[in-house]
Amino acid sequence: MYRLSEREWQAYTEKYKNRARMLISCPDRPGIVAAISHFLYQQGANIVQSDQYTTDPETGRFFMRIEFELTNLEERCEVIREAFRPIAASFDMEYSLVQASKRKKVAIFVSKEDHCLLELLWRWKSGELYADISVVISNHPDMKETVESFGIPYHCIPVTKENKPQAEEEQIAAVSEAGADVIVLARYMQILSPRFLEDYAMRIINIHHSFLPAFVGAKPYEQAYRRGVKLIGATAHYVTEELDAGPIIEQDVQRVTHQEDVETLKQLGRQVERTVLARAVGWHLEDRVLVYGNKTIVFP
Amino acid sequence: MYRLSEREWQAYTEKYKNRARMLISCPDRPGIVAAISHFLYQQGANIVQSDQYTTDPETGRFFMRIEFELTNLEERCEVIREAFRPIAASFDMEYSLVQASKRKKVAIFVSKEDHCLLELLWRWKSGELYADISVVISNHPDMKETVESFGIPYHCIPVTKENKPQAEEEQIAAVSEAGADVIVLARYMQILSPRFLEDYAMRIINIHHSFLPAFVGAKPYEQAYRRGVKLIGATAHYVTEELDAGPIIEQDVQRVTHQEDVETLKQLGRQVERTVLARAVGWHLEDRVLVYGNKTIVFP
Amino acid sequence: MYRLSEREWQAYTEKYKNRARMLISCPDRPGIVAAISHFLYQQGANIVQSDQYTTDPETGRFFMRIEFELTNLEERCEVIREAFRPIAASFDMEYSLVQASKRKKVAIFVSKEDHCLLELLWRWKSGELYADISVVISNHPDMKETVESFGIPYHCIPVTKENKPQAEEEQIAAVSEAGADVIVLARYMQILSPRFLEDYAMRIINIHHSFLPAFVGAKPYEQAYRRGVKLIGATAHYVTEELDAGPIIEQDVQRVTHQEDVETLKQLGRQVERTVLARAVGWHLEDRVLVYGNKTIVFP
Amino acid sequence: MYRLSEREWQAYTEKYKNRARMLISCPDRPGIVAAISHFLYQQGANIVQSDQYTTDPETGRFFMRIEFELTNLEERCEVIREAFRPIAASFDMEYSLVQASKRKKVAIFVSKEDHCLLELLWRWKSGELYADISVVISNHPDMKETVESFGIPYHCIPVTKENKPQAEEEQIAAVSEAGADVIVLARYMQILSPRFLEDYAMRIINIHHSFLPAFVGAKPYEQAYRRGVKLIGATAHYVTEELDAGPIIEQDVQRVTHQEDVETLKQLGRQVERTVLARAVGWHLEDRVLVYGNKTIVFP
Repeated sequence: MYRLSEREWQAYTEKYKNRARMLISCPDRPGIVAAISHFLYQQGANIVQSDQYTTDPETGRFFMRIEFELTNLEERCEVIREAFRPIAASFDMEYSLVQASKRKKVAIFVSKEDHCLLELLWRWKSGELYADISVVISNHPDMKETVESFGIPYHCIPVTKENKPQAEEEQIAAVSEAGADVIVLARYMQILSPRFLEDYAMRIINIHHSFLPAFVGAKPYEQAYRRGVKLIGATAHYVTEELDAGPIIEQDVQRVTHQEDVETLKQLGRQVERTVLARAVGWHLEDRVLVYGNKTIVFP
Repeated sequence: MYRLSEREWQAYTEKYKNRARMLISCPDRPGIVAAISHFLYQQGANIVQSDQYTTDPETGRFFMRIEFELTNLEERCEVIREAFRPIAASFDMEYSLVQASKRKKVAIFVSKEDHCLLELLWRWKSGELYADISVVISNHPDMKETVESFGIPYHCIPVTKENKPQAEEEQIAAVSEAGADVIVLARYMQILSPRFLEDYAMRIINIHHSFLPAFVGAKPYEQAYRRGVKLIGATAHYVTEELDAGPIIEQDVQRVTHQEDVETLKQLGRQVERTVLARAVGWHLEDRVLVYGNKTIVFP
Repeated sequence: MYRLSEREWQAYTEKYKNRARMLISCPDRPGIVAAISHFLYQQGANIVQSDQYTTDPETGRFFMRIEFELTNLEERCEVIREAFRPIAASFDMEYSLVQASKRKKVAIFVSKEDHCLLELLWRWKSGELYADISVVISNHPDMKETVESFGIPYHCIPVTKENKPQAEEEQIAAVSEAGADVIVLARYMQILSPRFLEDYAMRIINIHHSFLPAFVGAKPYEQAYRRGVKLIGATAHYVTEELDAGPIIEQDVQRVTHQEDVETLKQLGRQVERTVLARAVGWHLEDRVLVYGNKTIVFP
Repeated sequence: MYRLSEREWQAYTEKYKNRARMLISCPDRPGIVAAISHFLYQQGANIVQSDQYTTDPETGRFFMRIEFELTNLEERCEVIREAFRPIAASFDMEYSLVQASKRKKVAIFVSKEDHCLLELLWRWKSGELYADISVVISNHPDMKETVESFGIPYHCIPVTKENKPQAEEEQIAAVSEAGADVIVLARYMQILSPRFLEDYAMRIINIHHSFLPAFVGAKPYEQAYRRGVKLIGATAHYVTEELDAGPIIEQDVQRVTHQEDVETLKQLGRQVERTVLARAVGWHLEDRVLVYGNKTIVFP
């Protein structure tokens, strides 16, 4: 079977067992980097990557992502979080500290189109997406066999106008039971309720099959065809209440010509969609994405 | 001076003196290609390139671009046009037959931003745009010296709310006097009147500094910055009455990140704008662009 | 299962049952297009796409690809081939006439890396590659289960220094039994013998994991890393006797930075490899590729 | 004239008068970031951007680029350099500290092709390249008028087999007199002597008109045409003694097809060449490029 062997997962986990990532944001002022790096040095950490971004002087907000190595990270993680608290308080920081070896739990929602789901499963099995895919939820039974062949539970929860609230209860139960950290809408053609969005704010990633903000809403390839654009695109974004208007994580495009009909646009578009979604999910899993306002910072 | 020498222009003109281009569109039905190619064969022509496109069966329209070589083209051109008339009639064709060695006359409109103008002038001087740039018209005096150093007349026609109709009369007079075949709005930040658009229908090319239909209208880079897109773009299109809604000739994009502020977006965007506009103008000059409905066919 | 249903295959076959493709090459001279299109018109065909290319005047060779629709194609195909013979002879043409609805038979060779194979299988199942994948041959047993889950026979033929000639006999037997029209080396890390190459001249497509002619031979990502290139690439080409030197069908690249180590280059490269190979195979299956000298013409 | 007004240069200079950049490299070990950021904090600096890169564990080398703001930078720059010395010594650092408002002096070498030169001049005049272009040196007189119209001295130093050593003496004198910090070979088709390379090690940027390491040496477009590649490219690199083998700063490519002859490849290639060279020069001027071994780190 084309999957990462247990031995390889373990090699990865072992390799990164002492690797941690910090994501920090706070009002900008002198001394932030000094304070953080001094703290980490005192703890015995070695910074292996760090990237920062400061918004324009008016808004003056500082964002940082640090990767460091620290011996015996597992045991010391909680102590470090505790020790960092006063520094965070003095700079008014929001922050998180995660272990790189901890796999995030992912729930994937899908309808009938399989290309985005399969891309994620393929990258997962090949070890490119370091995560646990805990559950796949669909309003159709079509993909059951495929998903289960990867050893992943498949919940088919049909959604109709009538049963929508109840269906969503079932979805929430399934996601919750799976302990999902992040939800990926891999061409799931239904709108989630505000309650869902609230529980998973900035943790639901959707792929929209156009270069947003062009062609919001339904049938973007038909819209693109009618407008006669020379490039089609796809956009991965966090889901917010306003349709297709959440913070953009990644976009890409594909050149087309007058020759392509709508069907061919869809076919070419599928390649862009799956690439863009897989990149966005990968970055999220590696804690590279920070949201501010309605935009994202994606650390390299 | 960095310009194509007269000798080189003449070499080009000489090389293509027997080269003609036909653009044809008509309702699709069997026998069109046979009729055209048989006609050209009878005339002694050798087809060196031909491309065709048929819309979907419902609309069923046939489009074709042919390049052929024919000895003594100059003398025989009119005869051929005459001889083709019955064939055109029997297939209900719209068509044009042009000599590749005839340089089209171009009028360029510009405001204060010089990058698109300079790109066109540079490509013209280097022989990449085979045309006569007959006049540059601007509502500002800024580029006078530069344009005149290329040996091109420069009309500065200031436009204000009050004098707009009169200013446009002056523009029309200047364009008309220059005998312009095509008008290029090289970041000309004014809207042309319907009268202008009618006279030059599908012969006015504008560059819009966004990936249309995203960010129609004013300040597209500011809009792009606020939306947090990961790619910025530019669109060259024929101008129609509806703002930024005419048939798209060419588009391209440039990757950006959260780091770019509006000024940097503008700077990066300039490169895309000038490339996209230069390509679109080049294709128009080589008779590669056909319009149908609100879309273009761009023959390779 | 994520496969095109029989119903969908049949819909496709039905849709294109009267669609034919001609590939033609001959010395250039006036009248070729007229002769071909007149012939097709007489047969009652409607040309839906045609593209031509003429090499430079010195070599003067003409290449053409035509798609046409013809009622009752199945029955009339042989008659048309016969009727075309004198025209072909008079212009000294090499040509082929194929029915678009006939699926070509594909044999895929693979070693241990599964990404290119899976991409082909995925595009095949989704209907993007209109073909029969008749057999997968590997020198390793790893992919057996996966391939067979797609309903495709899997031959594991281990190759060692000692058994190479005999192993190749087995491969040839398997390919021959499968009636393969084309062989795809989807990261098959062994060199085929001249005999193989002769039998399948210009019908064996290989994916090389570099932007050829840079980094010929073994370990191209290691070579790319050492050279410090800023783009990595992949190349699909027909296999000839000289290693990695056959006619190039398609190439593409991916931007990288100093940050990527060899492992990450390989991971990023996999995406380019599978895209480039899938495109090249698709074009070959649609009879879009003609070889002349050591180069290809790829009709759009 | 289309140039940045003095007022605009001054605005830029004023805006960045307190902006400094540090480039650092040293053996990796814990505490480097802490030491540097603590030092800067003590000096009253505010870090506005910082990027680091550590090579693989075996070689274990640390590289960093920091931008910071510091009041009264001009006066305090020397003091800071002095104060940093013990820290640098304790970590065995190589480092540089430059003021962002100091314009580097650039000498451009050119032969007959003008596109790369003009792109640099255009970006310079539009304020995208913050530098002083101090001199243009050519072995041909062709560009004299153009260059001088920008207010830049032009030295025409013809180079023949016979006078080569003497011509190079003149070149060195001109470069030296201009006080050049960096030399740009903007399609200068002559090879510089080892003495030149030594004096300006990693400060001579060349544009090669291929995607290196493919098509080293003369006539790369002819080589590309013969090989039938589907992408052509350009490479900006630091010049070293081995031809076209120095550290690569930037590369890019452009899609081509079988239709393009050598002349068209050259024409398309010119666009890639000027873009790639301009980017590389811009990054060098902004102190974004560090060399290690035969590779570059380009900080974003």
